[in-house]
Amino acid sequence: MGQRLIDNINSPADLKKLSVKQLTQVCSELRGMLIDELSRNPGHFASSLGTIELTVALHYVYNLPADKILWDVGHQAYAHKILTGRRDLFNTNRKFGGLKPFPSPEESPFDAFTAGHASNSISAGLGMSVAADALQGEKQDRIVSVIGDGAMSGGLAFEGLNNVSSCHSNMLIILNDNNMSISRSVGGMRTYLTHLQTSKQYNSLRYTGAKILKALGLLTEEKRKRLIRFNNKIKMRLLRQQNIFEGMDIRYFGIVDGHDVQNLVRVLTNIRDMKGPKLLHVRTVKGKGYEPAEKEAAIWHAPGLFDTATGKRIINSSDNQPPLYQDVFGNALAELMRMNSRIVGVTPAMPLGCSMNIAMKEFPDRCYDVGIAEGHAVTFSAGMASEGLVPFCNIYSSFLQRAYDNIIHDVAISKHNVVFCIDRAGLVGEDGPTHHGAFDLAFLRPIPNIIVSSPYNEQELRNLMYTAQLPDQGPFVIRYPRGRGLESDYLKPFMPITIGTGRVIKDGADLVILSLGPIGNIARIAIEEWESCNEGKSIALYDMRFLKPIDKKLLDAAGTGFKHIITIENGSMIGGLGSAVTEYMNLNGYSAQVHVMGLPDQFVEHGAMPLLLKKCKLDKNAVISLINKILKS
Amino acid sequence: MGQRLIDNINSPADLKKLSVKQLTQVCSELRGMLIDELSRNPGHFASSLGTIELTVALHYVYNLPADKILWDVGHQAYAHKILTGRRDLFNTNRKFGGLKPFPSPEESPFDAFTAGHASNSISAGLGMSVAADALQGEKQDRIVSVIGDGAMSGGLAFEGLNNVSSCHSNMLIILNDNNMSISRSVGGMRTYLTHLQTSKQYNSLRYTGAKILKALGLLTEEKRKRLIRFNNKIKMRLLRQQNIFEGMDIRYFGIVDGHDVQNLVRVLTNIRDMKGPKLLHVRTVKGKGYEPAEKEAAIWHAPGLFDTATGKRIINSSDNQPPLYQDVFGNALAELMRMNSRIVGVTPAMPLGCSMNIAMKEFPDRCYDVGIAEGHAVTFSAGMASEGLVPFCNIYSSFLQRAYDNIIHDVAISKHNVVFCIDRAGLVGEDGPTHHGAFDLAFLRPIPNIIVSSPYNEQELRNLMYTAQLPDQGPFVIRYPRGRGLESDYLKPFMPITIGTGRVIKDGADLVILSLGPIGNIARIAIEEWESCNEGKSIALYDMRFLKPIDKKLLDAAGTGFKHIITIENGSMIGGLGSAVTEYMNLNGYSAQVHVMGLPDQFVEHGAMPLLLKKCKLDKNAVISLINKILKS
Repeated sequence: MGQRLIDNINSPADLKKLSVKQLTQVCSELRGMLIDELSRNPGHFASSLGTIELTVALHYVYNLPADKILWDVGHQAYAHKILTGRRDLFNTNRKFGGLKPFPSPEESPFDAFTAGHASNSISAGLGMSVAADALQGEKQDRIVSVIGDGAMSGGLAFEGLNNVSSCHSNMLIILNDNNMSISRSVGGMRTYLTHLQTSKQYNSLRYTGAKILKALGLLTEEKRKRLIRFNNKIKMRLLRQQNIFEGMDIRYFGIVDGHDVQNLVRVLTNIRDMKGPKLLHVRTVKGKGYEPAEKEAAIWHAPGLFDTATGKRIINSSDNQPPLYQDVFGNALAELMRMNSRIVGVTPAMPLGCSMNIAMKEFPDRCYDVGIAEGHAVTFSAGMASEGLVPFCNIYSSFLQRAYDNIIHDVAISKHNVVFCIDRAGLVGEDGPTHHGAFDLAFLRPIPNIIVSSPYNEQELRNLMYTAQLPDQGPFVIRYPRGRGLESDYLKPFMPITIGTGRVIKDGADLVILSLGPIGNIARIAIEEWESCNEGKSIALYDMRFLKPIDKKLLDAAGTGFKHIITIENGSMIGGLGSAVTEYMNLNGYSAQVHVMGLPDQFVEHGAMPLLLKKCKLDKNAVISLINKILKS
Repeated sequence: MGQRLIDNINSPADLKKLSVKQLTQVCSELRGMLIDELSRNPGHFASSLGTIELTVALHYVYNLPADKILWDVGHQAYAHKILTGRRDLFNTNRKFGGLKPFPSPEESPFDAFTAGHASNSISAGLGMSVAADALQGEKQDRIVSVIGDGAMSGGLAFEGLNNVSSCHSNMLIILNDNNMSISRSVGGMRTYLTHLQTSKQYNSLRYTGAKILKALGLLTEEKRKRLIRFNNKIKMRLLRQQNIFEGMDIRYFGIVDGHDVQNLVRVLTNIRDMKGPKLLHVRTVKGKGYEPAEKEAAIWHAPGLFDTATGKRIINSSDNQPPLYQDVFGNALAELMRMNSRIVGVTPAMPLGCSMNIAMKEFPDRCYDVGIAEGHAVTFSAGMASEGLVPFCNIYSSFLQRAYDNIIHDVAISKHNVVFCIDRAGLVGEDGPTHHGAFDLAFLRPIPNIIVSSPYNEQELRNLMYTAQLPDQGPFVIRYPRGRGLESDYLKPFMPITIGTGRVIKDGADLVILSLGPIGNIARIAIEEWESCNEGKSIALYDMRFLKPIDKKLLDAAGTGFKHIITIENGSMIGGLGSAVTEYMNLNGYSAQVHVMGLPDQFVEHGAMPLLLKKCKLDKNAVISLINKILKS
């Protein structure tokens, strides 16, 4: 391999020096680099392969950072990173201290807006465009929002679209249509877009029509003109009604091949400076250019390590590894659905990520992938629960933030028996600040009528799920983290758990640790190590299991028996377990001091989980340090 | 006036005994009753007048409570209440202990689902419909969601629509199109619906076309058939593409006159038992049948008391009354916009309710009513802030729950200088549990990088707004309640406030009360009264002003100087000021006991504000009782 063109591209300005014809080579080199790098340093694969040509064309035609590109979700922006001065850092992508997992203005002036959660690019882009208009001269108003058809199913994207034509804006929305969100795209909008695609057929039908009229001898030159005038009137009306975007006063262009970089440059050049809001509908293939990914885009969304030559994913699984929490959920859900015909599953576009695909395979009619639409997922679940079904609604913690009002207004007020299984609760590692599930305990605790729980281990997760589907439980939250549990041998018969009860993991005399969720195991290990070095002393560990209602007996025991209490949770230090325990001690006049361990009051960066736990002082050593500090003071 | 027909209607079954022709009289009687009752006992007026015929027709054709009607938002459901056994209770509407302000399954089996917040009826109705399908035999699957064009601008409604055709459902969506939300409806969808309305013109154009062809001598009988076949092919394709609903595989019917009750009965009877999802587009007039309301529907949304004969609203305003907080906001915003050209205003469909209409009138190009779309309002504001504008985004507390992720993901992570003015924070009175702003302090406090404040009075609100628009403040929350302030003479020059500082309202020796927001004035009055009866004793009052960052000096003073601290806030007792103070005392080793006053851990019912404050133990007497309890123990 000789010198690559991309090795001389240190900013978009360098790209612009090339001829349009050379762009095809640039794309090919980028594709090779991405496949190579991502096989060794895992990341979001299929999406980034699908947008290479679009990225190159955009940077060729637009003028960043004066112009802005908002990459919706942001997992497709790797080529953008490479072209904007981050090529040589790309091997640090997603690593602690390295390139961030999603676009971030903190990292680069070429990143226009925070990305990570889907569907925000139209609203944010519109805001930028309006600001540019208001600050004339100061800012350019060439704003491009690139949004996938999956993200288009989110209500926020619709709200944005709905407002585009009401504002003065020249923004361009690029609909990157690959018929996928992370899994296959769903919903009426998908159907609608497919219809748009078949409108080519309609056009050819019209053409056929002209031929028929001619064959019928109807199209004499003399009369043709009146007919054309008439046709044009109809056409104008039709064009307007033909598609929702035009109907909303957004000029529609498409559909164009998103992998023909030279044509993309032509099209973008043509429409770039047109006034008013525009939408360009681009057809792309997720995983484009790497056959295994093209075939199974969902699996290759974030495939982990793989062998580039064979296309085999390198899955690091020994038989004795403990299971992923998501798989414990997925298998238990299927098992419970066999026992209780009223249970249904609901996931907003994450059937693979949350392992609902297990139950989905067995009960396709009882599982609902509603697309990227967390609010709908919750209110839809509430509707089902109001009629007697028991929905298990699985949403990642940081995405549940989008359904907060739905939980309060549609579930809690009426006490509907919706089971919220909150995956990715707490730190998530490499996906970083937009994805850490830091706030759920804090934002759920003030809601009346709701049960909030977190299992200590796999078996407890199963038992909480079992308990939640028993009759008349009301709103029931079970939160658990990303990653693996503790025991490979965890499959035991379901047992009900009494709501609002924790349990004593071990007794002790000198200090008590109150934990919520699997992080209690870090405390357990820390205690073991500390006790082994401090003979004659002992530390108690209570697994609270429920944040709400909280176990008052255990808290009374802690308040009565100890001068110092440590609380530990994988969530914000503000508003969760630590707050609940502190409030209880104060309210009941216990003088025990509470030492709260949890996520700090700041957005935690990305990186490997053990590093982040250490950084946040939530690892074994931090627990030991705190114990020492307390007992030696 | 003789015996009315409606006096014999004690349930929908009684309605069904009447002839279709008699329904016109029923509607007229309902209209008379609503005008009469609401002139004396205020409520949601214009919306309820607009849906009378629709309500009567639905109850005539459907079979409640086996069938279900979901009234989106629910403020249009008064006729529904009257027809479903609540006629004689209607004079208790919205009063404490009386009929609830919105439909509630707790109140009546005829109320299918909690309403209050807009846009949830499609998702919830779809859930019910799916459940009915799953529980065959047990439940009926005739579900009707009635949603206004305003509520249709909410993302949740779109997410619901997007999922309708993916599920097995026979639900009927009725689009109640009155070109209004609370104020005039905005957005591309509005434009789109208007296009749909003009499609009649297209149809007549087609008809004209046929006439032209005939006139041209082209339509010989012999050739007509081939042309018809061809036309039908085009038509099929067109119908599908012509409107977004058909495009999403929802059968579309309309537009029908929503005030022709007999025709509505015919149409609903025709489509009631059709399989698959359906949408009926109905045109209504807000305020129908009462001329002043038809003319100014926004003002007559909830007009208060009025004289039925003259149509004059009875506005209880003496010149010396203190201003509404919303007007303090509205006027201060306009004033600040005059001073700082970077300020813009954003409201999700509440320009009148939050008084942004004041600034809107003066600066129409700098104020954005984005429709019922709280998520977009926040992300759009973030986009504008990222380019250097200073958006004042005004959202009611309970509606801000819909934009929680937008605050975290789009504003806080990047520290954008968006000013959130949270109106209706705390108890709101008659609008009840869906509208009380109970949770904002609790859900905002854990968010990093955010400033959370609440003014003690009108002047402080002005000064906080002034402070928030100074350069580089980052995300800045100012919350204030519904209702009036304290002083009619509050207009003083703007003064900056140091972030994170409270102030001593009065010193004292025996106890300190820490307050946040205008509720501090209740504490002040209570202290005055208490001190007047307890000579020689004194109680301090600190206005914390900021929940985050909290004033540590004041807290140290409280912790050092007092054995007991009372905190008082107009928000949930869990997670807000009380929690923050308790945590601080614990963390810093102060032994002062904290007594938290705030909203209880339950959904508070509706009723007049003084009654609710008493009920929640947040009135003057409750403060005095607590002081006595503490100091006498």
